[in-house]
Amino acid sequence: MTRIAILGATGYTALELMKILVRHPGAEIVAVTSRQEGNPHVAMVHPSLTGRVDLEMQDLSPAEVVARAECVFSCLPHGVSASIVPALLDGGCRVVDFSADYRLGDCDVFQQWYGQKHPDAERLGHVPYGLPELFRDQIRGANLVANPGCYPTSAILPLAPLLRAGLIEPKGIIVDSKSGVSGAGRTPKLLTHYPECNESVAAYNIGRHRHTPEIERILGIAGGSDVEVIFTPHLIPMDRGILSTTYSLPTREVTEESLLQTVRDFYADEPFVRVVEHLPGTKDSSGTNFCDVTVRLVRGRVIAIGCLDNLIKGASGAAVQNFNLMYGYPETTAL
Amino acid sequence: MTRIAILGATGYTALELMKILVRHPGAEIVAVTSRQEGNPHVAMVHPSLTGRVDLEMQDLSPAEVVARAECVFSCLPHGVSASIVPALLDGGCRVVDFSADYRLGDCDVFQQWYGQKHPDAERLGHVPYGLPELFRDQIRGANLVANPGCYPTSAILPLAPLLRAGLIEPKGIIVDSKSGVSGAGRTPKLLTHYPECNESVAAYNIGRHRHTPEIERILGIAGGSDVEVIFTPHLIPMDRGILSTTYSLPTREVTEESLLQTVRDFYADEPFVRVVEHLPGTKDSSGTNFCDVTVRLVRGRVIAIGCLDNLIKGASGAAVQNFNLMYGYPETTAL
Amino acid sequence: MTRIAILGATGYTALELMKILVRHPGAEIVAVTSRQEGNPHVAMVHPSLTGRVDLEMQDLSPAEVVARAECVFSCLPHGVSASIVPALLDGGCRVVDFSADYRLGDCDVFQQWYGQKHPDAERLGHVPYGLPELFRDQIRGANLVANPGCYPTSAILPLAPLLRAGLIEPKGIIVDSKSGVSGAGRTPKLLTHYPECNESVAAYNIGRHRHTPEIERILGIAGGSDVEVIFTPHLIPMDRGILSTTYSLPTREVTEESLLQTVRDFYADEPFVRVVEHLPGTKDSSGTNFCDVTVRLVRGRVIAIGCLDNLIKGASGAAVQNFNLMYGYPETTAL
Amino acid sequence: MTRIAILGATGYTALELMKILVRHPGAEIVAVTSRQEGNPHVAMVHPSLTGRVDLEMQDLSPAEVVARAECVFSCLPHGVSASIVPALLDGGCRVVDFSADYRLGDCDVFQQWYGQKHPDAERLGHVPYGLPELFRDQIRGANLVANPGCYPTSAILPLAPLLRAGLIEPKGIIVDSKSGVSGAGRTPKLLTHYPECNESVAAYNIGRHRHTPEIERILGIAGGSDVEVIFTPHLIPMDRGILSTTYSLPTREVTEESLLQTVRDFYADEPFVRVVEHLPGTKDSSGTNFCDVTVRLVRGRVIAIGCLDNLIKGASGAAVQNFNLMYGYPETTAL
Repeated sequence: MTRIAILGATGYTALELMKILVRHPGAEIVAVTSRQEGNPHVAMVHPSLTGRVDLEMQDLSPAEVVARAECVFSCLPHGVSASIVPALLDGGCRVVDFSADYRLGDCDVFQQWYGQKHPDAERLGHVPYGLPELFRDQIRGANLVANPGCYPTSAILPLAPLLRAGLIEPKGIIVDSKSGVSGAGRTPKLLTHYPECNESVAAYNIGRHRHTPEIERILGIAGGSDVEVIFTPHLIPMDRGILSTTYSLPTREVTEESLLQTVRDFYADEPFVRVVEHLPGTKDSSGTNFCDVTVRLVRGRVIAIGCLDNLIKGASGAAVQNFNLMYGYPETTAL
Repeated sequence: MTRIAILGATGYTALELMKILVRHPGAEIVAVTSRQEGNPHVAMVHPSLTGRVDLEMQDLSPAEVVARAECVFSCLPHGVSASIVPALLDGGCRVVDFSADYRLGDCDVFQQWYGQKHPDAERLGHVPYGLPELFRDQIRGANLVANPGCYPTSAILPLAPLLRAGLIEPKGIIVDSKSGVSGAGRTPKLLTHYPECNESVAAYNIGRHRHTPEIERILGIAGGSDVEVIFTPHLIPMDRGILSTTYSLPTREVTEESLLQTVRDFYADEPFVRVVEHLPGTKDSSGTNFCDVTVRLVRGRVIAIGCLDNLIKGASGAAVQNFNLMYGYPETTAL
Repeated sequence: MTRIAILGATGYTALELMKILVRHPGAEIVAVTSRQEGNPHVAMVHPSLTGRVDLEMQDLSPAEVVARAECVFSCLPHGVSASIVPALLDGGCRVVDFSADYRLGDCDVFQQWYGQKHPDAERLGHVPYGLPELFRDQIRGANLVANPGCYPTSAILPLAPLLRAGLIEPKGIIVDSKSGVSGAGRTPKLLTHYPECNESVAAYNIGRHRHTPEIERILGIAGGSDVEVIFTPHLIPMDRGILSTTYSLPTREVTEESLLQTVRDFYADEPFVRVVEHLPGTKDSSGTNFCDVTVRLVRGRVIAIGCLDNLIKGASGAAVQNFNLMYGYPETTAL
Repeated sequence: MTRIAILGATGYTALELMKILVRHPGAEIVAVTSRQEGNPHVAMVHPSLTGRVDLEMQDLSPAEVVARAECVFSCLPHGVSASIVPALLDGGCRVVDFSADYRLGDCDVFQQWYGQKHPDAERLGHVPYGLPELFRDQIRGANLVANPGCYPTSAILPLAPLLRAGLIEPKGIIVDSKSGVSGAGRTPKLLTHYPECNESVAAYNIGRHRHTPEIERILGIAGGSDVEVIFTPHLIPMDRGILSTTYSLPTREVTEESLLQTVRDFYADEPFVRVVEHLPGTKDSSGTNFCDVTVRLVRGRVIAIGCLDNLIKGASGAAVQNFNLMYGYPETTAL
């Protein structure tokens, strides 16, 4: 039994994490933290957990967390997470970090996109990126894992095999993503107020979404050369799910079947990537840790599509997959 | 041309009101107010009005409003509205008030349900209730009209003819209402945060929703005796629309057809009440000023149903209908 | 390992059943049937099962089913199911029947509501109703269990404790239910065509929905006297979830707290009924086998509310709960 | 008063058309046709038109249509429309055709994409394309207008000014479109069954959607050279609205502001194109005849966005705009 603490537990990723962990035979949630006043019971904050998680949310110091838990899932915001993680690691905890703090390789890039100094700069670039399909071996031995962003996973998984095989140009890759509203978090704001975003679709943060450098860095590692991405996220009136439609140029003459086969071979042994021939809908993987991937070739343009549940394979499912690898549980446990 | 001011113009009822008034040949919007900083253009607050309303929102005093406008639509919150309306009336404006401030007949009842002292108590009980189907003559001559609540209109229209005909018991009437989310206003809060209320239905404010005394008062006037209502509102994952399913006991032996005929006769000349034989869906009247009404008799229980667009017949459409009556325009103008 | 066949596997209840059973350590799906041509792979019919269920759908005779399986989940339509079940039982299979065929106690009532002669009339009235909260002991030893309807479970669970305690009148109970669209099945029709039912709410089948006699029969057994229900189902624009708001008259002076305590005591040891104090939303139990229940007392009227996922506790989750009881697995296995 | 017939009136475009025409001071609907048995009243087929259109749907021959109407709006399917239009024109009617039959310039291209011989081949290429922003003068004098497809309008309006100004490459233009479900018509099918498409987003018909040659043809005319488009439509869980995000390469060094200004200048006098600086949502133009357009420049790639209501500016609103031009009514009448 691994004793687990969840930091910043009021949001949707923490909620989904708890739903998964209560089914996990090797995990015991021993602490959930939040800065909400009055130490509310988990079921007060998340009614769906009534009868499933019997804990209060507390505002614990890193030392208190270390005293109780072996493994910490940090759902804290970027900037905040990296200011606490060092103390957790020093105290002997192993950490899966949901924030963007350890996903980039360079603190200048971090500062440019996140508008603040990185609180733990020397560690940057040495933390495994928690995408087992690309970095399984590094994750296994890690004390700290940077859990991927939801958009990046949906774009990286379909594109990485094609880049590694040298089949598509690494520059000018278009990533047109469609995301459900839970990806925007649980804090009420006008953008995600029901009558504003229901029955509407719009692009947002074109050219300046913070997942851009993350996608570029990981695809660059996967493919072995610098990658440039034009990333356009759109908000879709649904709870969950991301579909990323990517457009790239082939480097040489290819067929749709050869592209598909390259992706199939790459993921042949992966438990959570399904290379499909039909055009996947986000509902197919909703509530699961699967990422559905397919490829089309249209008028000489490669269209690679990735599709997942932003809260599961795009967040909490991936985190448990990483946890399983870190602690030696079968990788698919509870997923 | 009637010069019109709209107070509290950032919300959904003001938005719908402006959409209707720009089509109205007798109305000219000359002022829209809000306390938002920086006098934003209407199109900044309501992008859908881009190119349709070319005004800035300003924080105007009652005197400034009086100086510009003949007719004022007040979309201010309850309590606030009645603290300003006297000055508007004194200045010579005629007012359609969207708030609940003038809908009740008694300042004690107001204080009990709204938790505050009424700011204009002596006027209470002398203001026409803006439901033309019941109070057309009073509205015609009025300088101030209390625009009805959305739930009340959906419940009063199907029940009033049956009560007036003495066909149903005035006590123990159950009103089980289903409302789209726009009825909760435009201020972001957790309840109306998209991933909270989407894909979910729940009751709220059971037994203590403030529309209860309003329904009881108006039905009491319509039927001529005290009415008691058990009112249960539910939030439905859709933008707009209210369906109220009411249950009451017949006072004597009745048939479904005789009930329907009573309602049909009552509304025979009404332009905006459609007595239908099928079970209406809220979509049928969405975007219109219609209220669809029908009746069923099941195991000796009368089920009377009302169905409307909460922002049109339940708010801004009714307001324009009242405006048309007050100023002598054909009642259906722009509707 | 229990070898399982699923009959009529193209619909939503079969889909959810398979999702649950693939997590069940004691269940092995060995056959799935459908009359679709060409023996499509399960993943062709249900893309979300890609990589999770590797079987073809076949059009099997009862004899072929008996030859392969020990336990049969029949998702066949009413009328069809009861024409096959006898052969399955004779062949030694145990059966969980999703259809309405064995839920009623009387073949005349069946004929009246379902418009056809019952194909297995002598068995009617002797089959346990698969609601473990009321009939656990009968289910344990049964070879055939009538899995409850989704609406009935949502209405019976909140009302049964109050009826059994004699706290509410058994006549004139109003059940105003709100259901997601998956309850209407997977066959495309205009009523459930997206642009028809999205952004709309409407009542349907008022006074003649077939779940009426089922609710009345089971509540009658629970309370020990004849029950009369006015049942009004409404279609809500969401995938899943049912909320039933019931209205009844107390038989004597009661308090809200005493009503709640009666329900709490009744379900004290139940793993899947959560008696809550807040007003539950269907999202709280979505994807789970929980039924959330609460009670309010408003102006002398008892409002008892039940809330569940129509496809899980309202269908496939309940079926697995019954299966667990029948085969001696811990009741919560895979749920 | 122009006497109007609407052919194929059971679908959504006909419904929206009737809603607009009943507000039109110069239009009188005199006939609506359908092949439904029993000549159902319009309100039976479209409950929302109860009390607004009082006509029966009839199965009329072209000769009967000609005898009653001056102007015909044909909402018949492709292939069917062009087999009837010649008789209507010969009989003296003027026609706005909603089908794709007269949108292309070449019957071989028609046959390639629509899989059938064109029934009125010699007229192809001589019919004005009903996009007033590009072809106003041709529409004015026309007896037959090919009303544009919804996707094409959303892609053509943002791209045409940039192509005509020679600012973007005409080859390799990516059009990633997101459409509400009403665009798929009113015939129930699994794809548009509520529980299938709700809470999901998926691409469909990649590389083979029939609007591809239409977009290419009209953009080719607008820009003066052959255009090649990679068109990827996606189905979005909402009733109405299309957002097209297009990606193209600039032909020379440009700035975002110069691109925007080019589009602004092009549409300076257009009543229904709003060039906006924010990122428009489909809700902004929902229920209106507006198309909202904006442009971004990201990493040397031009992102031009168009956004409209697929049933209004994408179909029935455009049709009435064309009707107004053809008959000399002010272009914005009833819109």
